[in-house]
Amino acid sequence: MKKKKKQKSYKTKNLPPGTISYRGKKTSTVTHVDIINYNSTVYNILESQSVEDAFNFKDKDTITWININGLSNIEEIEKLGKNYQLHPLTLEDIGNTNHRPKLDEFENYLFIVFKMLHFKNEEELVYEHMSMVVGEEFVLTFQEADGDVFNDLRERISNGKGRIRGLGSDYLMYAILDAVVDHYITVIEAFGDRVEELEDAVFNAQYNNNISNHIQDQKREILKIRRNIVPLREVINKLEKTETKIIEEKTHDFLRDLYDHIVHVNENIELYREMIWSLMDMYMTIISNKMNEVMKVLTIIATIFIPLTFIAGIYGMNFDNIPELHYQNGYFVLLGVMAFIFVLMLMYFRRKKWL
Amino acid sequence: MKKKKKQKSYKTKNLPPGTISYRGKKTSTVTHVDIINYNSTVYNILESQSVEDAFNFKDKDTITWININGLSNIEEIEKLGKNYQLHPLTLEDIGNTNHRPKLDEFENYLFIVFKMLHFKNEEELVYEHMSMVVGEEFVLTFQEADGDVFNDLRERISNGKGRIRGLGSDYLMYAILDAVVDHYITVIEAFGDRVEELEDAVFNAQYNNNISNHIQDQKREILKIRRNIVPLREVINKLEKTETKIIEEKTHDFLRDLYDHIVHVNENIELYREMIWSLMDMYMTIISNKMNEVMKVLTIIATIFIPLTFIAGIYGMNFDNIPELHYQNGYFVLLGVMAFIFVLMLMYFRRKKWL
Amino acid sequence: MKKKKKQKSYKTKNLPPGTISYRGKKTSTVTHVDIINYNSTVYNILESQSVEDAFNFKDKDTITWININGLSNIEEIEKLGKNYQLHPLTLEDIGNTNHRPKLDEFENYLFIVFKMLHFKNEEELVYEHMSMVVGEEFVLTFQEADGDVFNDLRERISNGKGRIRGLGSDYLMYAILDAVVDHYITVIEAFGDRVEELEDAVFNAQYNNNISNHIQDQKREILKIRRNIVPLREVINKLEKTETKIIEEKTHDFLRDLYDHIVHVNENIELYREMIWSLMDMYMTIISNKMNEVMKVLTIIATIFIPLTFIAGIYGMNFDNIPELHYQNGYFVLLGVMAFIFVLMLMYFRRKKWL
Amino acid sequence: MKKKKKQKSYKTKNLPPGTISYRGKKTSTVTHVDIINYNSTVYNILESQSVEDAFNFKDKDTITWININGLSNIEEIEKLGKNYQLHPLTLEDIGNTNHRPKLDEFENYLFIVFKMLHFKNEEELVYEHMSMVVGEEFVLTFQEADGDVFNDLRERISNGKGRIRGLGSDYLMYAILDAVVDHYITVIEAFGDRVEELEDAVFNAQYNNNISNHIQDQKREILKIRRNIVPLREVINKLEKTETKIIEEKTHDFLRDLYDHIVHVNENIELYREMIWSLMDMYMTIISNKMNEVMKVLTIIATIFIPLTFIAGIYGMNFDNIPELHYQNGYFVLLGVMAFIFVLMLMYFRRKKWL
Amino acid sequence: MKKKKKQKSYKTKNLPPGTISYRGKKTSTVTHVDIINYNSTVYNILESQSVEDAFNFKDKDTITWININGLSNIEEIEKLGKNYQLHPLTLEDIGNTNHRPKLDEFENYLFIVFKMLHFKNEEELVYEHMSMVVGEEFVLTFQEADGDVFNDLRERISNGKGRIRGLGSDYLMYAILDAVVDHYITVIEAFGDRVEELEDAVFNAQYNNNISNHIQDQKREILKIRRNIVPLREVINKLEKTETKIIEEKTHDFLRDLYDHIVHVNENIELYREMIWSLMDMYMTIISNKMNEVMKVLTIIATIFIPLTFIAGIYGMNFDNIPELHYQNGYFVLLGVMAFIFVLMLMYFRRKKWL
Repeated sequence: MKKKKKQKSYKTKNLPPGTISYRGKKTSTVTHVDIINYNSTVYNILESQSVEDAFNFKDKDTITWININGLSNIEEIEKLGKNYQLHPLTLEDIGNTNHRPKLDEFENYLFIVFKMLHFKNEEELVYEHMSMVVGEEFVLTFQEADGDVFNDLRERISNGKGRIRGLGSDYLMYAILDAVVDHYITVIEAFGDRVEELEDAVFNAQYNNNISNHIQDQKREILKIRRNIVPLREVINKLEKTETKIIEEKTHDFLRDLYDHIVHVNENIELYREMIWSLMDMYMTIISNKMNEVMKVLTIIATIFIPLTFIAGIYGMNFDNIPELHYQNGYFVLLGVMAFIFVLMLMYFRRKKWL
Repeated sequence: MKKKKKQKSYKTKNLPPGTISYRGKKTSTVTHVDIINYNSTVYNILESQSVEDAFNFKDKDTITWININGLSNIEEIEKLGKNYQLHPLTLEDIGNTNHRPKLDEFENYLFIVFKMLHFKNEEELVYEHMSMVVGEEFVLTFQEADGDVFNDLRERISNGKGRIRGLGSDYLMYAILDAVVDHYITVIEAFGDRVEELEDAVFNAQYNNNISNHIQDQKREILKIRRNIVPLREVINKLEKTETKIIEEKTHDFLRDLYDHIVHVNENIELYREMIWSLMDMYMTIISNKMNEVMKVLTIIATIFIPLTFIAGIYGMNFDNIPELHYQNGYFVLLGVMAFIFVLMLMYFRRKKWL
Repeated sequence: MKKKKKQKSYKTKNLPPGTISYRGKKTSTVTHVDIINYNSTVYNILESQSVEDAFNFKDKDTITWININGLSNIEEIEKLGKNYQLHPLTLEDIGNTNHRPKLDEFENYLFIVFKMLHFKNEEELVYEHMSMVVGEEFVLTFQEADGDVFNDLRERISNGKGRIRGLGSDYLMYAILDAVVDHYITVIEAFGDRVEELEDAVFNAQYNNNISNHIQDQKREILKIRRNIVPLREVINKLEKTETKIIEEKTHDFLRDLYDHIVHVNENIELYREMIWSLMDMYMTIISNKMNEVMKVLTIIATIFIPLTFIAGIYGMNFDNIPELHYQNGYFVLLGVMAFIFVLMLMYFRRKKWL
Repeated sequence: MKKKKKQKSYKTKNLPPGTISYRGKKTSTVTHVDIINYNSTVYNILESQSVEDAFNFKDKDTITWININGLSNIEEIEKLGKNYQLHPLTLEDIGNTNHRPKLDEFENYLFIVFKMLHFKNEEELVYEHMSMVVGEEFVLTFQEADGDVFNDLRERISNGKGRIRGLGSDYLMYAILDAVVDHYITVIEAFGDRVEELEDAVFNAQYNNNISNHIQDQKREILKIRRNIVPLREVINKLEKTETKIIEEKTHDFLRDLYDHIVHVNENIELYREMIWSLMDMYMTIISNKMNEVMKVLTIIATIFIPLTFIAGIYGMNFDNIPELHYQNGYFVLLGVMAFIFVLMLMYFRRKKWL
Repeated sequence: MKKKKKQKSYKTKNLPPGTISYRGKKTSTVTHVDIINYNSTVYNILESQSVEDAFNFKDKDTITWININGLSNIEEIEKLGKNYQLHPLTLEDIGNTNHRPKLDEFENYLFIVFKMLHFKNEEELVYEHMSMVVGEEFVLTFQEADGDVFNDLRERISNGKGRIRGLGSDYLMYAILDAVVDHYITVIEAFGDRVEELEDAVFNAQYNNNISNHIQDQKREILKIRRNIVPLREVINKLEKTETKIIEEKTHDFLRDLYDHIVHVNENIELYREMIWSLMDMYMTIISNKMNEVMKVLTIIATIFIPLTFIAGIYGMNFDNIPELHYQNGYFVLLGVMAFIFVLMLMYFRRKKWL
């Protein structure tokens, strides 16, 4: 097992509450800003390095989606916070990449924290912290790094396909969460495949320390996945139940559907968790079975030959007077006796079903 | 254990919500439509390949049950959706065969998703995705493939026996769910028989890797059954509690009874789950007992004969001066000593209750 | 372990809901009817084979308790159902001996399903399905077979002792349930005695496959008891909480007391369940300890004598030139060396606390 | 383990509900009555054998605490019941020493059942059934035997210290429960000390069947403690929440504090329960470790000497023509080879970290 | 493992409720008092040994934070209680260092009990009991000993940075709790590092009794952490929900944020708990694997050489007539046969995948 680098990312200094500070891995040094502005007739897209380019869209009758990649540029986030009147605690939580999924309702916006999961190099599972501010005419999303799961969504907006262009910021919020949850499903399925591979490996007796390490790794991974995904269920539930002017009536059907999806995800997480735990038991059983088999081989060999060796030892003694040694057929008779004992032993083991 | 074919059926592309797409195994290429139209005096049955044949029944004062076998023919489902004004999300969920059981209430219909379980070739347990739309005058059911558990029900409708012909679409919905849950009971009982067979096998010492694989298979199966059946309990509970014009007052008694049945099913699932888990423990205990027995045989044989062999070895040494070797009865005395040690050892083991 | 006869008793055919059919073991072919009719001044008792004898009591100002033994005589039950206006689902559930405990409230009666537990031949625990219909002036009870736990109760009614003769059908219902729950307590205590016997057996090292089978049997038994008794708690709770004209205000105190009893029963069930589970662990520990002891004996003997035998083997070799063999006291010196090694080994094991 | 005497104390005869009968151990044949009568100015104490002495205090403006030691004297309890108008079920529950903790509210009094725990001879934990009736001007307590945990409380009343003399029967009830719960804390702490001693014993390798018996005993004890103490939490919670004229407003603060204490007790019970369970695991691990060590010693010795003994056996054969035997230095060369194999083996084991 | 000193700190004498008595470790003999008095314009700090110095701040329009270090000086606490009109039970709980976290609401103040966790000497985790009284214009905090986690907070107050100086006592309460919970996070992270180190140690086969002791120690520690931290979640939840004039509307956002943090802490506690438990399983598996390996080595060596030694024993016998001994090449043929058996055995083991 490779030595895990310990990543100490949570604040240890007790900063005044509401202080923005980036607590992630500092891998994305530059902040990219993608701005999409649309309504049923209009569509603008803008890539920029400054959030200020988005401010002129603010009071127009369009939906503005501002996506920030990289959280290390605190000034930009503060500008955004000022322009959209975000609460200091919201700004703090945007930068706190260890925050668990949650929903905060403020007077003029909703604030949602969640995790985006995807595989890097088909192997390592990456947990990216995301947060989203949803106002009546705008959606702000904050990501730790470039690369996300929203390409299909962006295409749908630009093509004007589906109903998204005709609907409000609440539907955009739903579409973003839906894309994230859809990707959870992919991740969980890939995880399930891994578990089944492990299962096959365990059954096919490729049992060694390596396998138990793999099982242990998957245990840890599923615990981590659970911690990052499961709280989103409660968030979406609250989102569906909440009474706010931001979410329109007809979006509730979609949120309810999204809730069904996240419940599906959570159930699969629990399923795989149980399967991994039970795999460990299985593994132990197979080890025990193997041990039993090993012991049986030893016992059969030792039980047969130790008494025979003893008999041979008897007649290997150098006493002057051992009458049997001088019989003409003593040797052959003894070989016969030994063969008889041998057969007797074999029958005993067969009756015990050891053979 | 046979290598499981990995079936990747959940969408990985983030389609716009509300898109219909069939995500099942694509085994049923043709879509069959069965239409039953009845009230207390009228009874029509129609087998067709197109749903349009059902549309002329729509505004008559009869109950129309349209059953679609095969979900791959998306156009037919869309036609149906248009005619009965189904929500896009309903259409999406009809095709999503991985969806967990749920109940959605819409303004003019109820939408219920559940699983139909039956055995194929007495061996393999098949999980068929079903969905049902219940309106005031119609019931639409969607199945993945031909073959279902509703033959008794169809006969009762055609015979006019029982109260079904005189009651509304809500009673038909109940009768369909009742048939499904009744079949769950049969499935669970068959599963219980398997568990008991395994138990007998474990007790009768037919313990080997094969058995532990069987136990593991049943563990997985019961987890899968649980995942597919248990959520229906909540669905039926909601159905009983819901206040909708579609379900009449007197049907509630029947739904309550149905709820009792599904609770019975769920309890049995939990029971068998506990029994399988405990069976694994039992199996481990029996292995340990066997190992103990094997070890005892080895220990008894080795403990008796190793010291005796040592003594024989002593008198097999070639020292010039070993006085005992030259005693007239040295050999016989030694044999006597050895027999004495042998008996002593046996007594020791008997006192330890190893014999 | 004796091969369990599989008893397939749940319907596999999807009958129309509300159909009466007896799904028990068909052991009681004849249906006995006991009718007790009483108020504070009147007392009649009647044994009959037909329920019709009870119908003339119906509109009198007395409490009528009709007890049906044997459920196979469907016509009698239907007559009763007609006379007392029972719902078809009630009639179905009376015959369904697999039904879990439940309470149904109908307009003019309460319907309670529960299990009566008693020992047959001091050994086998019998689960008898019972149901009870409680109206304002009558109580109907349905048992699978003759023999029950109500003899004390019947005596109290006939003697006119206690308050029962002066009270209504709700108090009779309470008294019946109280007798059943009292008998649960006896059963659970007997079960507890069995568990303690098993515990003693485990501690007294009478460990073998037989014991683990016994433990496993008790595990299964307690799971079965739990499944049959535990739901009654919820039934009695509902009974205490329900607002119906059938149950008078002052009976609620008694029902609350009954609830305390059933909670007591349930707690004991959980207690014994935990004890049995923990007994299995105990048993495994004792096996491990035994194995450890066996291994130690083997190791001590082998570790002492294998090296000594090797040394003896050295001087049993037939090399022409082994100088030690020709020393005058070579043999005795070697014996001394061997004794020294022997003592050394013993000291080593003593230091390791193996001796 | 000493054979437990089975004490069958729960009624097996179905007596009419409300019958008083003592179901305890019948150890206290005589009933003692302690009567304390007080208000802020008055203080009387009276030891008697009859409850009738207390009746003249009844209508005075003082608080009367009547404490009954010994429940076998049914007539006295019935007199008391008559005088204070107790419900028949209350009288029944006073005598039922198996009753779990509970709170019953009646029109003019509260009835509380709980357990008093204390150590007998520093070793055996005794569970004494207690019940308490709290009216507006009186408190009745019923104990199984002499000796209780209320001496400090009695002293406070007689001294007039603290606020108790100026307050009502509800405060006296609180003070009694507080004394009981305080004693729980002492008991739990003593239990915790035992668990820690066991832990030390396990760590210090004093592992044998005895220890596992001790662990098992403590498991059983903590289950019993839990069953007797835990329900009191709910009782005190209900007491705090209940709206009755008997409990004055300002006493609620004290009850809330008492609730905190009982929650503290329950948490410690759960903590020790988890610790004992985990101790068993620990014990199993240590056994496994020991076994591993034993096996290693055996394996090292056997693996080294068995091949060497084989070699010695080769040259102990009596073939006419074994050239090596006649080499001048054959014996010494062979000894060298054996030493070399010996060293090689040691190195192998060292590399495997077995040495 | 070092012998734990048993610290008996909970009262065993049943004192009158409301009695103040210090039940801690009596390590801090002197009581220090820190008084900070501030509003947006004023800032005073005072270190004293008497609480009376704080009383002149009482009615001024400033926030007064009085921090008491050391609880053994009961008179000072009583003076404080008198001056701020604290309930006797509050005073009792301030001194009871075993009290679990809780929130009590009184008419004119809130009383919060919690634990401050920090590491002493980077090794030992110290649990310090703290309580806090929050009134409209004052905050009183009580600590067991000097040294706390509030230095950053004090600095912020003295610098006038952040919003704290402009806000009320409720915000100060929030800031104190925030500092405590922030420190929990540090503690939990350090604990997590320990768990990961243990995990590495287990995987790197440094398995011995020592490691299992370490795992056991961490088990105990996490149970203790959980007991001390987890109840604070409920406290903060109640604090957020409570309707009191002391907590202003805008502070609720901060409390909600704090609640998220404590939930985060609790989730991590559960995570590490599961990881430690699963580590024990892992450890057992590795031991089993090792044992298996040991057994295999023994079995291979014994199974190969015991039969060979037997054969050598045969030809070491001294029968007069053993024809093979006199063959010219008998010895060499036998060596060949032995080599053949040896190779055969090796192939058998290779096929069994033991080599």
